[in-house]
Amino acid sequence: MPSPPAHRLSIRVDLAGGGRIGPGKIALLEAIAASGSISAAGRVLKMSYRRAWELVEDLNRGLGHPVVTTAAGGSGGGGARLTPTGQRVVAEYRALEAATLAAAQPHLAALGEAPPTELD
Amino acid sequence: MPSPPAHRLSIRVDLAGGGRIGPGKIALLEAIAASGSISAAGRVLKMSYRRAWELVEDLNRGLGHPVVTTAAGGSGGGGARLTPTGQRVVAEYRALEAATLAAAQPHLAALGEAPPTELD
Repeated sequence: MPSPPAHRLSIRVDLAGGGRIGPGKIALLEAIAASGSISAAGRVLKMSYRRAWELVEDLNRGLGHPVVTTAAGGSGGGGARLTPTGQRVVAEYRALEAATLAAAQPHLAALGEAPPTELD
Repeated sequence: MPSPPAHRLSIRVDLAGGGRIGPGKIALLEAIAASGSISAAGRVLKMSYRRAWELVEDLNRGLGHPVVTTAAGGSGGGGARLTPTGQRVVAEYRALEAATLAAAQPHLAALGEAPPTELD
């Protein structure tokens, strides 16, 4: 018998300094780290440069420290990379995600069990 | 030295049948269980009877089984109580919440650490 479709856990972190971190902002930081550019990362994630910058600035504010550092450059921009804070945020968020998904799994499975038919 | 304000984890469960469960819907089920009435539960949570019913029906749809059972009644309504499915959903959600918060804690704390000042 096929198992029933699974319920899924979705997580966000509400930052002490305001704002939130979820999978979208983490994917953006990972794309900035991979591409070395905020505009390239925005293109990968199908968001405008302006939107990508807004998300980065949300993170800077919420964490109280910059997550991305940029170098001045020509028309193509001077490149961007994660600060140590940005690197730590990505690593800790991914570790938090893995740990919470593992902790949630038995309860998500129990939520999906069929009820006792004589009672429901 | 006071510890810095804490980041907080926020969770939701995306249901296989569509819709989501978060703290608001669970609080509503708990208030229905406590008061024996959807309208009383709605009042406690400052939502309309209509809104409370919509949230209950979202859960019924998303889980594929009713979470609340009602008895026909007079002008005051006939009362409402959680089905075994509804009871299980509340218990498993609260267990899931406790397990994920515990799993997240060390990572939330690490997110809040000060960065190395010479680098950021």
